[in-house]
Amino acid sequence: MKVNGVDYRTIWLAEDGWAVEIIDQTKLPHAFEIHRLETVEAVAVAIGDMLVRGAPLIGATAAYAMALAMRSDAGDGNISRAHDLLLSTRPTAVNLRWALTEMTTLLVPLAPDARAAAAYARAAEICDEDAAMCHAIGEHGAALIEAAAAQRADRDGGGPVNILTHCNAGWLATVDWGTALAPIYVAHDSGVDVHVWVDETRPRNQGASLTAWELASHGVAHTLIADNAGGHLMQHGMVDLCITGSDRTTADGDVCNKIGTYLKALAARDCGVPFHVALPVSTIDWSMTDGLREIPIEQRDENEVLEISGSDAAGAVHKLRIAPENCRAANYAFDVTPARLVSGLITERGRCDASRQGLLGLYPEQS
Amino acid sequence: MKVNGVDYRTIWLAEDGWAVEIIDQTKLPHAFEIHRLETVEAVAVAIGDMLVRGAPLIGATAAYAMALAMRSDAGDGNISRAHDLLLSTRPTAVNLRWALTEMTTLLVPLAPDARAAAAYARAAEICDEDAAMCHAIGEHGAALIEAAAAQRADRDGGGPVNILTHCNAGWLATVDWGTALAPIYVAHDSGVDVHVWVDETRPRNQGASLTAWELASHGVAHTLIADNAGGHLMQHGMVDLCITGSDRTTADGDVCNKIGTYLKALAARDCGVPFHVALPVSTIDWSMTDGLREIPIEQRDENEVLEISGSDAAGAVHKLRIAPENCRAANYAFDVTPARLVSGLITERGRCDASRQGLLGLYPEQS
Repeated sequence: MKVNGVDYRTIWLAEDGWAVEIIDQTKLPHAFEIHRLETVEAVAVAIGDMLVRGAPLIGATAAYAMALAMRSDAGDGNISRAHDLLLSTRPTAVNLRWALTEMTTLLVPLAPDARAAAAYARAAEICDEDAAMCHAIGEHGAALIEAAAAQRADRDGGGPVNILTHCNAGWLATVDWGTALAPIYVAHDSGVDVHVWVDETRPRNQGASLTAWELASHGVAHTLIADNAGGHLMQHGMVDLCITGSDRTTADGDVCNKIGTYLKALAARDCGVPFHVALPVSTIDWSMTDGLREIPIEQRDENEVLEISGSDAAGAVHKLRIAPENCRAANYAFDVTPARLVSGLITERGRCDASRQGLLGLYPEQS
Repeated sequence: MKVNGVDYRTIWLAEDGWAVEIIDQTKLPHAFEIHRLETVEAVAVAIGDMLVRGAPLIGATAAYAMALAMRSDAGDGNISRAHDLLLSTRPTAVNLRWALTEMTTLLVPLAPDARAAAAYARAAEICDEDAAMCHAIGEHGAALIEAAAAQRADRDGGGPVNILTHCNAGWLATVDWGTALAPIYVAHDSGVDVHVWVDETRPRNQGASLTAWELASHGVAHTLIADNAGGHLMQHGMVDLCITGSDRTTADGDVCNKIGTYLKALAARDCGVPFHVALPVSTIDWSMTDGLREIPIEQRDENEVLEISGSDAAGAVHKLRIAPENCRAANYAFDVTPARLVSGLITERGRCDASRQGLLGLYPEQS
């Protein structure tokens, strides 16, 4: 998507043809900086420190990390060492496991001297596939927004379709287009009048930092809100639909997404607002049914709650403490929204109910 | 309550016997500073800028402001001028209107030269009454916590009672004891093992700044969480009960409180966690029934969402921007939790259902 009028993806090969370049997302929205990765260890740090984040982008980045690993040492031991190192960085992201299994399965049977080239080729394919998949999600989801625009026109004589989103499931979270934001970009690009309520998404503020930034870069109207505000907006008819992403989706349609998603889904249900979740197939964990009982929830450093970073009047970025000295915090990174609260899932194959039957209708090969 | 081992209220007369002193709550939790008020205009600024906040404390502060006004000019015109100036500062707070009506009704029939002394006396009484009222709320609410502790002991063999609260309805929001926190202080002081989940309460962070600070000062165990986290905690049995305050309560039991309260009430209902609201009678607006349709919701400056303040490593307080340049924000300060989501109300007269029948049982003089 566009940044300063130039088309970018979130990950690409450097001009030298072997190093990997990413946007350092920890610097957004205050600075747009490219970060060069040369080793699997550097990639593990980049994933752990969230220079790249978002389930699909983490998967694509891990795929390129396997290529970097093969370039330096294509032995069997290094395949499993790189696999294990990368897998340990973000335990909740099912795409990470998927991409690493994909790469390992590809690489193990090959002769060592063929592994690096094959890994680079497959990583590039994974990126292209992800971009195509997200665009397909955008096409399927845009139909919902167009329908809401038509309803809006019938009811109020027009005005923007108001969409609430949580966290960042935009192009910055994927290779391109995004998941939750893909339908918004597709609808906007085809002329639908959309306005996005952007949850700031504490504690890491991915909404304020990333979603607001990428919507502004693309020219989509939006307003930032505290995470606390969505219920009030829904009570007063100011939200036509909610669309979020998913880090992990069970075979029965439970959705594990950024902490706080569940609260918005409850408000949507209470207020009669449709609540849709956009996801690529790779986030579906077909082995799981009851998300609440089965999905492990990552706990992150308490300093993400106790401190916050932002830019001063001169544009320099600082970190400040927002809690009393000696205060402790808990920092659960995700929550699970039960399928009963999800109006529908949007995948690259189309839309379906958040249920086993719905998902198997789109993915009959899984039954 | 205690600060550095010394007993404080949130408002008191200065040693000179006429000026009013308050804790500058905008400086918390980073600094404990006393702020001296000498004029009604200064009080209006202090209320508008939230140096004092919390419905009961705003009422008490406005009462003292009327005394300051009478001290400088006890004429009829100044009664109504001071009344109107103060009323305009925080349109949602029903206690403000109550205290101003109380003072005006007292002052108008008096001879001008008797007004200042009468105003000071009545303001002091309002403060004492508020402290007594909050302590009574604490006694009635503590019974709920003791019952939860007994349940906990039966079920798990003990462990702390986990209570989730939103915003600051502690002693800092009142003259002393608080409303939502009063039951916690009373239970804690009588030896019940309590632990409080403190919602940080974006955008103004009253939980992180004030609730965490006052609980720490008093020695009550607590953990700070992002506002997004409460649903997850409730889904996993980590919250025994929720207690919040109320800025305004309708005769039918709808509760208008800090933005985000509604979302927590929805989660409590969904997870079977009791959700109680503590309030003094002065926050009940007997003229209103449907809170969602009738209570006007204050919109505050968007910079409260776009910027945040905190302290650097040297302890100096700064403000940083957390959103992209040119980003706009919406800042609704309160939301309405419908009575159907409230397990019970705790007032100075006891506990009741969140309904007209329940409230009239405690306040039969209103029927």
